Amino acid sequence: MNFTANDIAEFLNGEVEGDGAVSVNNVSKIEEGEFGTLSFLANPKYVHYIYETKSSIVLVNKDFVADKKIAATLIRVEDAYQALAQLLEMYEQSKPKHVGIEQPSFVSKTATVGEQVYIGAFAYVGSNVKLGKNVQLFPHVYVGDNVTIGDNTVLNSGVKVYAGCEIGAECIFHSGVVIGGDGFGFAPSSANDYKKVPQVGNVVIEDHVEIGANTCVDRATMGSTFIRKGVKLDNLIQVAHNVEIDENTVIAAQTGVAGSSKIGKNCMIGGQVGFAGHMSIADEVKIAAQSGVGKSIKKVGMVIQGSPAFEFGPYQKSYVLFKNLPKMREQIMTMEKELKELKK
Amino acid sequence: MNFTANDIAEFLNGEVEGDGAVSVNNVSKIEEGEFGTLSFLANPKYVHYIYETKSSIVLVNKDFVADKKIAATLIRVEDAYQALAQLLEMYEQSKPKHVGIEQPSFVSKTATVGEQVYIGAFAYVGSNVKLGKNVQLFPHVYVGDNVTIGDNTVLNSGVKVYAGCEIGAECIFHSGVVIGGDGFGFAPSSANDYKKVPQVGNVVIEDHVEIGANTCVDRATMGSTFIRKGVKLDNLIQVAHNVEIDENTVIAAQTGVAGSSKIGKNCMIGGQVGFAGHMSIADEVKIAAQSGVGKSIKKVGMVIQGSPAFEFGPYQKSYVLFKNLPKMREQIMTMEKELKELKK
Amino acid sequence: MNFTANDIAEFLNGEVEGDGAVSVNNVSKIEEGEFGTLSFLANPKYVHYIYETKSSIVLVNKDFVADKKIAATLIRVEDAYQALAQLLEMYEQSKPKHVGIEQPSFVSKTATVGEQVYIGAFAYVGSNVKLGKNVQLFPHVYVGDNVTIGDNTVLNSGVKVYAGCEIGAECIFHSGVVIGGDGFGFAPSSANDYKKVPQVGNVVIEDHVEIGANTCVDRATMGSTFIRKGVKLDNLIQVAHNVEIDENTVIAAQTGVAGSSKIGKNCMIGGQVGFAGHMSIADEVKIAAQSGVGKSIKKVGMVIQGSPAFEFGPYQKSYVLFKNLPKMREQIMTMEKELKELKK
Repeated sequence: MNFTANDIAEFLNGEVEGDGAVSVNNVSKIEEGEFGTLSFLANPKYVHYIYETKSSIVLVNKDFVADKKIAATLIRVEDAYQALAQLLEMYEQSKPKHVGIEQPSFVSKTATVGEQVYIGAFAYVGSNVKLGKNVQLFPHVYVGDNVTIGDNTVLNSGVKVYAGCEIGAECIFHSGVVIGGDGFGFAPSSANDYKKVPQVGNVVIEDHVEIGANTCVDRATMGSTFIRKGVKLDNLIQVAHNVEIDENTVIAAQTGVAGSSKIGKNCMIGGQVGFAGHMSIADEVKIAAQSGVGKSIKKVGMVIQGSPAFEFGPYQKSYVLFKNLPKMREQIMTMEKELKELKK
Repeated sequence: MNFTANDIAEFLNGEVEGDGAVSVNNVSKIEEGEFGTLSFLANPKYVHYIYETKSSIVLVNKDFVADKKIAATLIRVEDAYQALAQLLEMYEQSKPKHVGIEQPSFVSKTATVGEQVYIGAFAYVGSNVKLGKNVQLFPHVYVGDNVTIGDNTVLNSGVKVYAGCEIGAECIFHSGVVIGGDGFGFAPSSANDYKKVPQVGNVVIEDHVEIGANTCVDRATMGSTFIRKGVKLDNLIQVAHNVEIDENTVIAAQTGVAGSSKIGKNCMIGGQVGFAGHMSIADEVKIAAQSGVGKSIKKVGMVIQGSPAFEFGPYQKSYVLFKNLPKMREQIMTMEKELKELKK
Repeated sequence: MNFTANDIAEFLNGEVEGDGAVSVNNVSKIEEGEFGTLSFLANPKYVHYIYETKSSIVLVNKDFVADKKIAATLIRVEDAYQALAQLLEMYEQSKPKHVGIEQPSFVSKTATVGEQVYIGAFAYVGSNVKLGKNVQLFPHVYVGDNVTIGDNTVLNSGVKVYAGCEIGAECIFHSGVVIGGDGFGFAPSSANDYKKVPQVGNVVIEDHVEIGANTCVDRATMGSTFIRKGVKLDNLIQVAHNVEIDENTVIAAQTGVAGSSKIGKNCMIGGQVGFAGHMSIADEVKIAAQSGVGKSIKKVGMVIQGSPAFEFGPYQKSYVLFKNLPKMREQIMTMEKELKELKK
């Protein structure tokens, strides 16, 4: 699919500077620009690239002033980054979209399937499943019995949803996501072995949730594990049984949340963070990567770090002194000597 | 499926207090109780919920004394938690169970298949595979050539078992589990690149093992990687080549065990723990979450924490002082000044 | 498949000592040796096992001198470990190899398929895909539209490659690997929710790359995420969008690399390490397990540890003093008392 500078400028309500007939079929970073692609310049640090880039078109802010000649066609817009985001979305939507039911696939006779769905080859749709309209199930997706999936949700190849879970609308799950596996619940017995506690609850995922590749969300022992509206989970995250992650919280890759913990709204959690079980985390909390959270956090907006984690500022101070411990030890040894001298 | 309070009381050998004809079709936590569900009350902290709960039936201990009127029907039993576990199991077993071979699936002519197995659509069973009776292979399971799987074992959708591995009876593997991928073995060459060391061993998993979603157990370079009887592994765990995890050890999510390490019996390992290679861990050892184990542990029942990990108590003490390093630094600076004064 | 000691000695250009007609059909570690298997002895620490081993054949170095009688047939070679590696490779190659297209599978009419490929049952090959010769796609592999895969590459059961990614020759990806899932990119909006930034780039993986089970490599926002020639990634690793990992770098399990970071050539990265985004790591850097890298590293060959990480030696010293903090505190308290005394 090709767009000319003129087409794009019209779409973005921008102004062309240079050859309006030049066309592009892809986007690129300005520093890696190639012929036939469109780049953008928003960060002043990257200005020097605009004189060398091979990109055919560059989006710039209205007030951009060039020092030298630029080979590329420019499109001047109010906000180059916003304009790019708009274009990326248009580009994404211009891609051909899979629709229809490929064969062989397995769709239970008792399943209800909305309009315009895509069911890829080798996808499995169990008994009494309800799929909303425009749902896309890529190849090898498994949707267990009695699952419901809302409109426009996309399950990429290989996503597994166990029986009885509820998925909202406008969600995107990436390959390898597992929703509704059994929670890790075992009752110790006298013989030092363990008896499985059946996990009879489910997982409820609300609208506008995106979940990264190979992330796991376990079903509740009883009741539900909740992922609320707008939550974004990165890859390889563990969400244990009966956890609740509240609206618009964002969690980076490889973080783990142990059973029954509740994370508030609008939190930002770094990568490889661990939460102990039965914790309660206030809204808008920020947690540095690799932290370990062993206590509930009640203060809205608190920023923490460390394992176990405490306030970010004090952690940073302690860590600087940790690095300086050898020096501190020398100070102590010097003082001990001096004291000995003085006591003579 | 519906059960009345009278039915349940009879099953549990309990005593009904209230309307014995009231019926339930699900369980819920007492604090989230809904009409038509059964809850339980065991923890004294939760007593106040019993007066508000909307659950239709609540299991209570024989000696429970109510202060106020309770809307729900009570069933008095010896031990409410045990009774609940019994009920959950009955509930679980009452669910319809998949049996038979769905189409399309792929079962090699040389495979041996026990009685009453379930082979879901798109499951793959390779050459010379042996499946015991009641084995359940959900859709998209892959069982490579020459694998054996014991009676009553359940492989959920998308489990992958590489050729030549041995799986015991009564095991449950969750979606995305990978058994028998190649160990990470490379011989450095002069040219700074690496030559693969073929991994010709396998994985042996004994009976009653449960493995969580997306956990990986690598095949041995030679011989076997062993997961012994009764071991429980949570989600997203890494078990490297030639590791051995001994009976009834329990490991929480996202822990990794490097090559050739041996973990004893009845250990309890927290989440996100890392073990270096060629370690040997005694029986009954407990390891706090996010610890890093860089040395073998010989003392049975030792409790450790930290990265690198050492004894739990001393770690806690050191960590408190780490938090107080800024104060310690001030003490040192004060003393230095005082010393200077004294030396004048 | 059976080989006699005479066969093996001829293949390895070695010398038989004992019964040349004895045959083996497997390899084993000398300490776990069984009848009908071949072991090797290279490490002097393991010499005592040679007198007890049940292995039928043992490879030893030319200059090995026995103290006692040995039951096994010996084969003397220049270098027993190298000889073993040679044998493992021969053994591996002697295994029957899957070739041909199993049914049912899904291969788009617009796909180009090289000679001697294996496409397992339930594998999916999308539009305009190009598969080189001898490519092996095991069951349940998903290859999205427009993907190219080089000669001799093996994708084990359940590997998922999203549309538009490029995979080199001689690669091995293990089960559950996800290539090309969307990068984790969201633009915060005023309403405290997030708008997805479409990820329109791809992933480029060069030749001779091996990727472990359930590892994820995200597609770039624009341009490409690069895994260069000879890189080896262990299981459960996270590689975010626009990352570049340069030639022959080796990364252990459960490590995560955040967006746009660049890791140099010939680095060795331990398990469970975390890299912040936009970092740049020099060539030949070594990083201890569980470290957190929050700053770029410019020094070639630097060795670092800690979270946040700094130089290995100083980290070790600081950590020893961390363990000794309780003692340091006592020293300080003693001095404080003494000072008080002196000031009287």
